[in-house]
Order: sequence, then C-alpha cells, then structure tokens
Amino acid sequence: MTVKTVAAGLDIGGTNSVYGLVDRDGNILADGVVKTSQFPDAVDFVAAVYSRIVSLVEGLSGSVELAGIGIGAPMGNINKGTIEYPAGLPWKGITPIADLFRRHTDLPVIVTNDANAAAVGEMIYGAAKGMKDFVVLTLGTGLGSGFVVNGKLVYGHDGFAGELGHTTIKPGYSERECGCGKKGCAETYISATGLKRTLLKILANSLQPSDLRKYSIDELDSKIIYEEAIKGDPLALRAFDYTGRMLGIKLADLVAHTSPEAIFLFGGLAAAGDLIIRPARESMEENLLSIYRGKVKIQLSGLEEKNAAVLGASSLVWSELEHK
Amino acid sequence: MTVKTVAAGLDIGGTNSVYGLVDRDGNILADGVVKTSQFPDAVDFVAAVYSRIVSLVEGLSGSVELAGIGIGAPMGNINKGTIEYPAGLPWKGITPIADLFRRHTDLPVIVTNDANAAAVGEMIYGAAKGMKDFVVLTLGTGLGSGFVVNGKLVYGHDGFAGELGHTTIKPGYSERECGCGKKGCAETYISATGLKRTLLKILANSLQPSDLRKYSIDELDSKIIYEEAIKGDPLALRAFDYTGRMLGIKLADLVAHTSPEAIFLFGGLAAAGDLIIRPARESMEENLLSIYRGKVKIQLSGLEEKNAAVLGASSLVWSELEHK
Repeated sequence: MTVKTVAAGLDIGGTNSVYGLVDRDGNILADGVVKTSQFPDAVDFVAAVYSRIVSLVEGLSGSVELAGIGIGAPMGNINKGTIEYPAGLPWKGITPIADLFRRHTDLPVIVTNDANAAAVGEMIYGAAKGMKDFVVLTLGTGLGSGFVVNGKLVYGHDGFAGELGHTTIKPGYSERECGCGKKGCAETYISATGLKRTLLKILANSLQPSDLRKYSIDELDSKIIYEEAIKGDPLALRAFDYTGRMLGIKLADLVAHTSPEAIFLFGGLAAAGDLIIRPARESMEENLLSIYRGKVKIQLSGLEEKNAAVLGASSLVWSELEHK
Repeated sequence: MTVKTVAAGLDIGGTNSVYGLVDRDGNILADGVVKTSQFPDAVDFVAAVYSRIVSLVEGLSGSVELAGIGIGAPMGNINKGTIEYPAGLPWKGITPIADLFRRHTDLPVIVTNDANAAAVGEMIYGAAKGMKDFVVLTLGTGLGSGFVVNGKLVYGHDGFAGELGHTTIKPGYSERECGCGKKGCAETYISATGLKRTLLKILANSLQPSDLRKYSIDELDSKIIYEEAIKGDPLALRAFDYTGRMLGIKLADLVAHTSPEAIFLFGGLAAAGDLIIRPARESMEENLLSIYRGKVKIQLSGLEEKNAAVLGASSLVWSELEHK
C-alpha cells in the first residue's frame, strides 16, 4: 500500500488563520479556519491548531504521512522560527511559534512571512514553476514581497529580507503615516488602504461630482472604489491609475536590484487587473534603465486566490525537504 | 615541481584598462595598463591585451598555469559574454568580448559589470570572506552595485542585475538628467559627479562666501570638494552631508530588498570616509523598518583601492571554477 505524503500549511492572519493539508501537486485535501483573535495566548492557539491538523490527517482515507508544517505569518522569521513584533496579531513582542509547535511534534516546522510563503508557493505549485529569478508582490491591506534569486527564496542574513512595502517612495515629500512609524512607505500608496488614501486626496482636490462622495470614510474601501471604477467614475479611475503608476516606480526599482524574469501580483488589489496593471507596466517601463525595457513580465499569480495562503505556507515544507 | 595557478583579471575603463595576474590568495604577481581609447576596434583591443597577458605569464618564474580570464566592464553581461551599449567606452552597440578572447584561447572567459566583479572580489579576497549576504556599492563617477545572496552573486534572469545607480531617488521631483536618459537616477546624487552637482546647487542657493567659488565649474571635482571640506568649508561639508543622506535612503531601500549583513563602500567617494559614511548611516537607520535597525554594517571595502579593479575581475575566474 502506498503512503501519501502531505504538508500542512498554516497562514496566520489578524482576523482568521487558515490551515490545510496539501499534496506535492498542490491539491488541498482538507482545510479549516480558526479565529486568531480568540487566542490571546499563542500557546493555546498552537495547541488548538495542532490538534485540528492531526484530526484532518486522521480524517483522510488511506495511509497518510505528514511531512511537516509550513507557516506564513506577518514578520515570520525563518532563521529563528519566530514571529517578531507583528502589527495586527494578538501576540505582542516575539512569539517562538516553531518551538511552540515542537512541544507537540518532531516534524519540521518552517516559518516565514506571508509574501515569502506566497513566492515559494508560486515556485512550487504556481506560475513560476521552473523560473530561477522572480518576485511576488502581495497587494492586500499592506504591500508584501518575496524575492527568488538563483532558484532560492531570499531570506537575507537575518531572515527578514523582502519588505518592499517599507521602502520609501517619496523621501522627504510624503506626509502619509505608515503603521510602521515611518512616513511615505510604499505600502501607504500601493495597497488596498493606499488606494483609499489616494482617492481621499483626489476627492479633496477635485470639485467633480462622484458617487464616491456618498460613502462614509470608514465605509469606503478598495472594493467600492473598484466597482465605481468599473462603472466609469473618473475619480475612482484616477485613483487606480495613480496607484498603478506608483507601483510601476517600485517595480522599476526592484528590477534594478535583482532583475527578475517575472513579477507576480497577488492579493485583493491585484484582482483589479488592468485597472492597476496597465498603468503599472507603463510607469515601470518609463522608469527602467534601457537594458531592462520590454523584457520583464508582470502577471497575476498562478495560485487560486481562495487557497493561495494555505498553498504558500504548505510549500515551505517541500522547499525545506528539497534543499536538505 | 609544483605548478602555480593564476587568474588573469582585466578591468575595462573608458580611459584605461588595467590587467594583471593574481593567485588564489589575492597576490598580484604582474600587471599592466593599456589605453582603451587607442583601440577604436575591440578586435584589436582584445588581441593586444591577450598578447600582453601571455607575456606576463611567460615572464613569471617557475611553472605557471593560467586558469582563465575575468573581465569587469561597464554593462558587462555574464550570460552572453558581451558588453552592451556602454556609456564611455569607444565600442558602440554590443561587443562580444568573451568570443573575441576565445579566438585566441580555450580558457574560461567570464565577463560582468565592474561592481559585480568588485563584489566577487570582496567575497574571495576581501572583507566579505565567509559572508553569505552582502552588497558592494562602487561610488565613483557613477554608482554601481553588486549583490550577493545565499553566497552567490545576483546576476538576474538576463545577467544585468545590480544597477542601483539607475533607480529613481525622487520620482517626479528631480530635474537632474542622467547619462542613461532618465531623470533623478540615484547616481545623479550619489557619486563623485553627483556630489559636484549638489555642491553647485548649494552654491546657487547660498550667499555664504566659500573658496569653492574660485574654481571654474569644469575644474571643480570631488577631490577639491573633499579638500575644502577637510579645511572646514561649510558648503563643502553640506554637500557631503546631503550626498551621504541620499546614500542612506538608498541603503535603507536595498536592505528591505535582500537584507544583507554588510554593505561595503568602494571607490573614490567612499575614501572620504566619515564625511559620507556618518550621514549615510544616520539616514539609513532613520529610513529602515525597525526590524532591520542597528544590525547592518556599513564599511569600507577590504580590497586595496589601487588593485581592486584587477582583483575583482580576476576573482570571477575562481568563482566560476568553484561553482562548476
């Protein structure tokens, strides 16, 4: 009888954490969700998630072997197996998340930030299969990034590489406060929340009528702006165009660092497609050194949005096993 | 009798090209210079340099084996062995420099840009020995960069990675024209010529007397500005401070990409030491995401300035042989 090997993927988010069992081909065999915020103590969170993963394994038919647990989390550190000073999680300071799992199991436990996990997922299951040099950007509430160079994820000397969201886009010129304490970080422009801030600025400057003025500031979000843009609202379109152009500037910058073959866009804002990709591509090309022009692909992630977080996290296990 | 193995290093510059024979420990056993500008045809240049390298090998005592030829050149491409559209060299378009050498020899010929060669040199002979993740910036007439990640130089999918000098430092705000055709590139601020442009702007704005006003614009260079700064000229000091602060912004940016253990500064402007490194460090720390603060070293290159170009170029041979 053949034994089926699966990897567990866990994506820890501020509201929900999703987990699942994934085979080497990227099929999700079972999955589930817990409310992260219900666990003020990470010890209890890990105990609960671990027992649920064990139940999922037991629930699969046939002989199943769990190869390890991959975890994507904000400020996840591969070297130390920790989550360090995350914004938006209930656990403050440094959480030794891998060690907490090791109280329950001897299996490999691999932790990194969610964008790095997405990049490994893209390489193992997605559209970056076979590529040696590419970048994944996650355009959600914030802006995350994962760099792959020479076929390996770039973790840096401290395990924290790939925080493009906190590079400064207009040094000395921008007043936009970032959650990290700095001003003018790329993610204050290039993210779902950045799009909303840009729209508010456009609404402040413009006298043009727009249905967007009917919403409360709290209510306004990237989904509403997207829907109005699709209906042709010129201010919503302008907000997308500006956001895309800022993204293009950052894309040109990152190309000059690692010269990737492709850049994959992932997450809610990426789903706006050409509303953001067209201006991003134009602005990237304008800002590229001539040797790079016309050869870097910008495309949507090949991972299914719904399952991408679990796929990305689980892929860390295969990546770890294959590099041993 | 033991055979001594040496690598040839060739650094191609706009005015001069220097070459030499280097052993595995970084000792330069013989070297020489040719005037690049005397060779309007690259075919003749290669024939002349190759015969001089052969003469140097024959001139060494004992039994000597040449392991290969490493070449650092502006816009040098490792994948294709070419020099492509270099600014400042007599050869226009694409020069297949490696193939031109292969008309004379079957030895390995490796080409990359000068900053990448400097990074490999730093790893093999210099202060980055044993480091897996670091960056070398060359602060000369322009701004070059070489990234090492996971112990390997980052060449990117097209062989052109590491052109930090042509990232945009103040998108949409800067009027400084760059030789590449864009405006506001980092090297229009962070280089010997950038320092001079900054000084001219300071002189335009300030009414303060300064000995620097006695020089013609053509005459003024980073060496004069350095000497005046050392004497305490406040405008020269301000130009260094501003240049260092712009450098710091770029350093913070690059840390968020690959999170290196150390950043090595190399070239004429780096020799100004604390005049540029102190403001660069301060501004880097201010612009870093908190997880990166206080842990990235900024230091001078461990390669001797005079010989660095030949050392860097020759190191490509050892790097190539060791990765086979």
